[in-house]
Amino acid sequence: MNILETGIKNVRNATRYSIGAGALADLPKVLANRRAQATGSVVYFIDEFFRTSQQLIDRLAIQPADQLIFVASKKEEPSTDGIDGIVADLRGQLTQNPCAIVGMGGGSTMDTAKAVANLLTNGGRAEDYQGWDLVKVPGIYKIAVPTLSGTGAEATRTCVMTNARNGLKLGMNSDYTVYDEIVLDPDLPASAPRDQYFYTGIDAYIHCFEALAGHYRNAIGDAFSRETLNLCRQVFLQEDMMSAAHREQLMVASYLGGCAIATSYVGLVHPFSAGLSVVLGIRHCLANCLVMHAMEPWYPREYEEFWRMAEHQGIEIPTGIGRDLTPDQYQALYEATMIHEKPLTNALGEHFRDILTPECVTNIFSQM
Amino acid sequence: MNILETGIKNVRNATRYSIGAGALADLPKVLANRRAQATGSVVYFIDEFFRTSQQLIDRLAIQPADQLIFVASKKEEPSTDGIDGIVADLRGQLTQNPCAIVGMGGGSTMDTAKAVANLLTNGGRAEDYQGWDLVKVPGIYKIAVPTLSGTGAEATRTCVMTNARNGLKLGMNSDYTVYDEIVLDPDLPASAPRDQYFYTGIDAYIHCFEALAGHYRNAIGDAFSRETLNLCRQVFLQEDMMSAAHREQLMVASYLGGCAIATSYVGLVHPFSAGLSVVLGIRHCLANCLVMHAMEPWYPREYEEFWRMAEHQGIEIPTGIGRDLTPDQYQALYEATMIHEKPLTNALGEHFRDILTPECVTNIFSQM
Repeated sequence: MNILETGIKNVRNATRYSIGAGALADLPKVLANRRAQATGSVVYFIDEFFRTSQQLIDRLAIQPADQLIFVASKKEEPSTDGIDGIVADLRGQLTQNPCAIVGMGGGSTMDTAKAVANLLTNGGRAEDYQGWDLVKVPGIYKIAVPTLSGTGAEATRTCVMTNARNGLKLGMNSDYTVYDEIVLDPDLPASAPRDQYFYTGIDAYIHCFEALAGHYRNAIGDAFSRETLNLCRQVFLQEDMMSAAHREQLMVASYLGGCAIATSYVGLVHPFSAGLSVVLGIRHCLANCLVMHAMEPWYPREYEEFWRMAEHQGIEIPTGIGRDLTPDQYQALYEATMIHEKPLTNALGEHFRDILTPECVTNIFSQM
Repeated sequence: MNILETGIKNVRNATRYSIGAGALADLPKVLANRRAQATGSVVYFIDEFFRTSQQLIDRLAIQPADQLIFVASKKEEPSTDGIDGIVADLRGQLTQNPCAIVGMGGGSTMDTAKAVANLLTNGGRAEDYQGWDLVKVPGIYKIAVPTLSGTGAEATRTCVMTNARNGLKLGMNSDYTVYDEIVLDPDLPASAPRDQYFYTGIDAYIHCFEALAGHYRNAIGDAFSRETLNLCRQVFLQEDMMSAAHREQLMVASYLGGCAIATSYVGLVHPFSAGLSVVLGIRHCLANCLVMHAMEPWYPREYEEFWRMAEHQGIEIPTGIGRDLTPDQYQALYEATMIHEKPLTNALGEHFRDILTPECVTNIFSQM
């Protein structure tokens, strides 16, 4: 278990959070405070989903000198090249660093804001910081405004990026990647498409059952994971998962699930899901759900519960992706999965390669 | 419910925490970092219980210019006059503000460190800041090292002090009162007396059942409270509450219980307990347990569970304190209890005075 044994856990919390329906009204106040303390404008990263939501954008009180960048979250996940492009553009436009960066959207948008905030103060390219504790100095002050709940990006110390050159899907794992403030307004996910709301929300559930089933355990990670699962069961196994009360509970589950992941490891689902994202370009939260097609032997209780949740909420999970893959694609999927040594060790022990043979991995992907 | 309705919750987290057996080794590292960044020495507030624990004190790597103050936690709880005295002494001895303050001990010691840290930068007297959001500027950078778990003082935005002049037991409720760092080392409570360990630990249980039974509820407070109760049941209803695993779980329960209280209110037990502390000088955690003698009609399930926990762990809760009180003492107890309008409203609604008549309150105290 050596690669998991990190000994004492040193955890950086988000310094503040606001929570409650209408909490978005706090954002202009927080930013006014930042504007008074530091020079520079504000850069907003907003999910393209809200491009035409003028009423919502008006509530942000964006100033003339601020930058508003819509993040193309639907087509693709953050990439190192994409982040480098945004940073180069911003450097061309800004005469000084912004006083704050806002990431308003789902996991991709929040991760984009985190990565850009780190690069603006640290210099270099995004891939220079893929790994653990490579970020040298604090990033720009940053505020998360999740509009979809589940990934926990608002609470974690990473921002996941795909690197096209080496095929690696890996984040800037650093205390400096943690948001300074989080605005949790359960009104914001109300307009999300139901399937997207489910796929994203269930990421919190998957994170936490993987953590609790793992070899590496600790008291605080377990506590956060247990309560996250409890909240997810309330949201997805009761009536409408998108009621006001359930939107708020899922927002809390996402935040606590993020806190859980900060002190634990995921298991089998996430490495396979990463394989699907890297090789086939399937977005993270949907990819997790596809992996669940094949998880019955590995997580039997959670497999049953997951499919009950999907059925209860009337969400269809696509199937058939693994049917017509070429041998080269299976090989690429195998490699992109097996590179995730830490979660695989957490799930199966240090001899995970003896269990996850190429045949076994191919068989798992073929069931999706 | 108006006095409870605070709308959107703005919550300040402790910026960092370390957790794990042996985490105390992190403290000298954190302080070395502070010493490098800021001028001034370090002031350590340490529970008098450790006065003769030279081995432990050696591990702190205290420097010659630092101040070490033992807090007389056994005799009395923090008072406004006591805090003012410490601040005056420090001002006389220090030529500049310290670069960090450490509070190592139970709730009294951690609260003393918080209050002194605020006063050294804000000036004035402790009683000037008893209330809500009266602290104007950040205090000295402060680090909590709990050696007893339960009160949640390491996580909350208050530091409770008794004011002898007006009989009020009230804290400096402020975001600036929140610790910057917390070192959670479950080895530290191993030497605590069993009864003290129980009295203090059960404070987390009582906080959270009061919050969950209250009128004022919210999704994140509820989540923290539920998991705190879950952890307390594991600690106090299974075998030895002081095993290494249970010490760590109780440390997590205390931290999460503190996070719960930051977004919710206590109920009936704490106002009565405050009455016992103010009028009869009984320490907070023991006072809570005495109040539980009379809580059967108010919290029947938790009453039953509390006494089962005490019995299971072989802890004796004193009785008879309410037997020989004078009418003047009963009157003083009534007043010192009823002053706590927020928790009493949370427990019983805005017409709590119609329920808690002087006769009813006297009857409750007489059962202790």
